[in-house]
Amino acid sequence: MTNVNDAGSAVSGAGSNGERNLSNATIVARVDAGTLSTVIDALSALVTECRLEFDDDGLSVIATDPAVVASVNVDLAAGAFETYDGANGTFGLDVERLGTIVGLADRDRPVTLAVDAGTRHLRVGIGELRYEMGLLDPETIRSPPDPTELRFEYGGGAVLPSATVDRFVGATDLVANHLSIALADEALRIEADGDVDSVSLEFEATDLQAFTPGEARSLYSLEYLRDMSRAIPGDAAVDLRIGTETPISLGFEIADGEGSVEYVLSPRIARK
Amino acid sequence: MTNVNDAGSAVSGAGSNGERNLSNATIVARVDAGTLSTVIDALSALVTECRLEFDDDGLSVIATDPAVVASVNVDLAAGAFETYDGANGTFGLDVERLGTIVGLADRDRPVTLAVDAGTRHLRVGIGELRYEMGLLDPETIRSPPDPTELRFEYGGGAVLPSATVDRFVGATDLVANHLSIALADEALRIEADGDVDSVSLEFEATDLQAFTPGEARSLYSLEYLRDMSRAIPGDAAVDLRIGTETPISLGFEIADGEGSVEYVLSPRIARK
Amino acid sequence: MTNVNDAGSAVSGAGSNGERNLSNATIVARVDAGTLSTVIDALSALVTECRLEFDDDGLSVIATDPAVVASVNVDLAAGAFETYDGANGTFGLDVERLGTIVGLADRDRPVTLAVDAGTRHLRVGIGELRYEMGLLDPETIRSPPDPTELRFEYGGGAVLPSATVDRFVGATDLVANHLSIALADEALRIEADGDVDSVSLEFEATDLQAFTPGEARSLYSLEYLRDMSRAIPGDAAVDLRIGTETPISLGFEIADGEGSVEYVLSPRIARK
Repeated sequence: MTNVNDAGSAVSGAGSNGERNLSNATIVARVDAGTLSTVIDALSALVTECRLEFDDDGLSVIATDPAVVASVNVDLAAGAFETYDGANGTFGLDVERLGTIVGLADRDRPVTLAVDAGTRHLRVGIGELRYEMGLLDPETIRSPPDPTELRFEYGGGAVLPSATVDRFVGATDLVANHLSIALADEALRIEADGDVDSVSLEFEATDLQAFTPGEARSLYSLEYLRDMSRAIPGDAAVDLRIGTETPISLGFEIADGEGSVEYVLSPRIARK
Repeated sequence: MTNVNDAGSAVSGAGSNGERNLSNATIVARVDAGTLSTVIDALSALVTECRLEFDDDGLSVIATDPAVVASVNVDLAAGAFETYDGANGTFGLDVERLGTIVGLADRDRPVTLAVDAGTRHLRVGIGELRYEMGLLDPETIRSPPDPTELRFEYGGGAVLPSATVDRFVGATDLVANHLSIALADEALRIEADGDVDSVSLEFEATDLQAFTPGEARSLYSLEYLRDMSRAIPGDAAVDLRIGTETPISLGFEIADGEGSVEYVLSPRIARK
Repeated sequence: MTNVNDAGSAVSGAGSNGERNLSNATIVARVDAGTLSTVIDALSALVTECRLEFDDDGLSVIATDPAVVASVNVDLAAGAFETYDGANGTFGLDVERLGTIVGLADRDRPVTLAVDAGTRHLRVGIGELRYEMGLLDPETIRSPPDPTELRFEYGGGAVLPSATVDRFVGATDLVANHLSIALADEALRIEADGDVDSVSLEFEATDLQAFTPGEARSLYSLEYLRDMSRAIPGDAAVDLRIGTETPISLGFEIADGEGSVEYVLSPRIARK
């Protein structure tokens, strides 16, 4: 629910409290700790710092890992917030630090984020707790990729439970550093070859939540997929899209559909 | 319940069992493992060895940490024991060792402690298990402070749940090595300042179990408070007393009110 | 249940699936992951690799630890398998590796083992997962002891819950590297002496599931007993047999009585 009035009253309510005054805050938003943790976990899989972009529609973050092999795109619509004041701005965030703070709150508790653009501080409020952390200069943070660069032609894909992603990542991780993902006529096929051992998993289309057949077979780094799979919430349906020697896209909804996360991971070149 | 007869029969009962004879024991007491663990945890927060003082009224321990910054005072009345023979004596205990042994027992199981002053051994009985450990010479253990030295004039205080102590210790620990605790007119206020980040928590008097207003503001070491907070049972109500540049006292009941623990921690001198 | 037809149809069913063809497998057996894990845990306590012997009656493994101080004998009757084709053969197994793979499965899930003697590979199937691992040359694995060498004359023994074994191993482990186990007239007695502390446990015959009195007292290494006790399932009744200065035997049933494990551990020579 987006409600500028609610956000406004949160500000003035806090304003009656001396040092706790948020009225000079540039942006004030309130969201439950669980949603915020999911966003932070999604980002932490790839980066330690990122640019937060607030605008009328909500919060969005696009970030790429230091090796520029993978990117993450997080959107959280204004409706995902309990209150959202709709102010605009771009800020640099220490992702891990905010994660530690939000970890102090129960998942269903509201967390208030108040950005003070003047002093470049983020004040985080959780119940009687106020945490004030420095923000980073967004200019010092690696430029996110142009979103248009992240639109690839995928040969096909499948929708599968988060646990299935954990499963094929965990099993292939036993034997190799990379896995191949391919679409067969009526199945999603995962393979990994070690020096001696090998693993394969075949998920029939009828056992998947959705299946789009197509020409697709690529090799990906398990290190990245492992970090991504850990950040996907346990109840998520993962929209997996691949092609041949193209990036893989792993997308899922968050915040009851009011937000989304998409990972894009470049393929590894197969050894000839 | 104090019952010398019960204690006596425990001794003679054990005496019928060859090597298990406790009849030459100087002191015999039996208490449930949960209560004993709580006492050991309270002591372990500050010391690795201590002097146990048994007298007619029960067991008492006063100990101070090696840096003489904090002390702990534990009292366990005779009534906290299942059986207590009321004999008198002072013994040196390896606290960690006894903790490991008691950790073998379920919390509701009775543990029998039989001190043999002659051989300076403590025999610990838990069901079919007998553990015999050496006691330490009490003369080799750092002298406990005179209890009268631990009576300070406190400006005021509050009673708050154990979880609240965990909360402000955990949050301030993210940014600093020490925190300030102050009483405002109608609130308990905790603050910590790091190089960049800062944390504050304000607990309104109406949200506390009790509140005694007064002039009070002091700085304390988080390292000590962290160890103490871990030793406070989850269901305890903590009686917190402070003043200005004075020690803080954290007290709580144990053994259904038949015992008590009090920590006293000296203030840190604020950097000017 | 042994059912060659079922095994056969499993093979031909798999054979309809291209690369998943098991029809060239020498041996095919299917068993639930929980039973297989119990077998692997029992072996892992002593060895990292072993010889699997398949014959008409089922699977058997005899292995001895590198120091030749202890041995383990595992039998799993054909009836413990969901399907068992009764083919014969001896193969060298990397125990830890198979344990990791089986750990990917829920305990009640069936695991298919297909040995290909020609390529010396073991294919492990768990649902949609196929894991192909290399087998070891059985000639390179330490020879198991002759089973007749493992038949000792025991003075007596007792049957006791797995938790009781954990208990006396855990308690004596606090003070020493070895323990003594002895039979008294009507009790099983465990003792360990450290430099300062000592532990004893006495289990009355009436508190044990069974008790066979006899002349018995020996000293055993705690390192071995600790590893063995961890591998004994929590609900097992352990058949313990000892003598004087003889090995100890610890036996228990697995797979609802369709299998068994027996550890035999040589005594330590007591210091005079």
